[in-house]
Amino acid sequence: MRNIKITIEYEGTSYKGWQRQANGITVQEVIENVLSKITGEVIKLFGSGRTDSGVHAIAQVANFKTESSLSTGQLMKGMNTSLPGDIVIIKCDEVPSDFHSQYSAKRKTYMYRILNRPHPSALLRHTTWFRRNKLDLESMRKAVELLPGEHDFRLFAHSDITVRTTVRTVYSANLTRRGDLLIFEIEANGFLKRMVRMITGALYQIGTGKMTIVEFGEMLNTKKPEDINFISAPARGLFLKKVDYT
Amino acid sequence: MRNIKITIEYEGTSYKGWQRQANGITVQEVIENVLSKITGEVIKLFGSGRTDSGVHAIAQVANFKTESSLSTGQLMKGMNTSLPGDIVIIKCDEVPSDFHSQYSAKRKTYMYRILNRPHPSALLRHTTWFRRNKLDLESMRKAVELLPGEHDFRLFAHSDITVRTTVRTVYSANLTRRGDLLIFEIEANGFLKRMVRMITGALYQIGTGKMTIVEFGEMLNTKKPEDINFISAPARGLFLKKVDYT
Repeated sequence: MRNIKITIEYEGTSYKGWQRQANGITVQEVIENVLSKITGEVIKLFGSGRTDSGVHAIAQVANFKTESSLSTGQLMKGMNTSLPGDIVIIKCDEVPSDFHSQYSAKRKTYMYRILNRPHPSALLRHTTWFRRNKLDLESMRKAVELLPGEHDFRLFAHSDITVRTTVRTVYSANLTRRGDLLIFEIEANGFLKRMVRMITGALYQIGTGKMTIVEFGEMLNTKKPEDINFISAPARGLFLKKVDYT
Repeated sequence: MRNIKITIEYEGTSYKGWQRQANGITVQEVIENVLSKITGEVIKLFGSGRTDSGVHAIAQVANFKTESSLSTGQLMKGMNTSLPGDIVIIKCDEVPSDFHSQYSAKRKTYMYRILNRPHPSALLRHTTWFRRNKLDLESMRKAVELLPGEHDFRLFAHSDITVRTTVRTVYSANLTRRGDLLIFEIEANGFLKRMVRMITGALYQIGTGKMTIVEFGEMLNTKKPEDINFISAPARGLFLKKVDYT
């Protein structure tokens, strides 16, 4: 059996996330169906991880096993010919048999984009979180500086998670402004369900003065501040940007 | 009668261009219908110019006359509440009665985006022209440098145009690369139908070596090179970026 790794860009707007599920079409399912048609086999795709409904990917990674003798170039061309325009295979490589998109992953990078201006955007409506209130970038940046290192992100995770540990190591985090866009990037050894969206929600509250940097720092030590509404930033501003394997 | 100027951002993907027409829904029509509902009057919107089917606007300008006593803030809020997400009013001002979006315009700026990489993009599929062949940016830039000044753009216009003159003055033109994107911007006192798309098509042919800079220069003097396929770059890469009135 050959082991094929694919790198995928997608706009998540029309999908119920990455992972195959009963109620709604998902990115995994669409690619699996196309691959099964191309190879004549039942293909099972292993993703580097789930992305929520509406979340985008600049470079999601997945792998699958196949007996097909098609070259990686032929597979890639075949997939891109049959896939809808909002899913594109941007890379296709044959990898050693022990490579697994999820278990072999060493680091991931996510990007979140907030559009901060007085009026919404027609062109960026599916790919940013529109926030009208002027945000205090400097305070948000000070909070972002607290992120690198090992923290227990329990308070920044969806309540239904079932994981061995909620401790993750953040390798880098930064917040930049480009015109009306605030761009938050975070690289870590792994992410909990909703983690980036909940961190972004907290950063937004710091930006509006509803949460202090001290409170944010305490949350990174699992101490829940009182009288704070926890906000999860919406899916549409989030992009899985990169999965690293070395 | 009050005269109201609005500035509009839109994604043109779902529209048959700006101008109201029989076969298909247009941006003008959608905004007129919303304005008529808000004001209780039959509103006629005057745009700064047409944009073709599928072309986008970062800041199209239009104006309309109304007896409504609603403030510009109320009008803007009312429009944005009722408009679909792919059309947003980003500015609304009361202007002198002699202001006309088209006739008062002094300059316009268009932007065209080419995505130049080996594979298409899911996220940019509606807002770029995807070209796989590696383009020679330096040659394209040399051609762009020929654009500023007064030229007869007859060969860079749709054949069905009926205008007094095909001479236009280009104030600035430049081509930059940002990652895989080639971004062409051009500012002029006016544009012929299809002009930016036909210039971009010629630049693309220069980038692939199918047209020389000399031939491009001759076209700016209405001399048609032989054995050249004239290409009009597709609508989806084009943005009306700015309309200036001073």
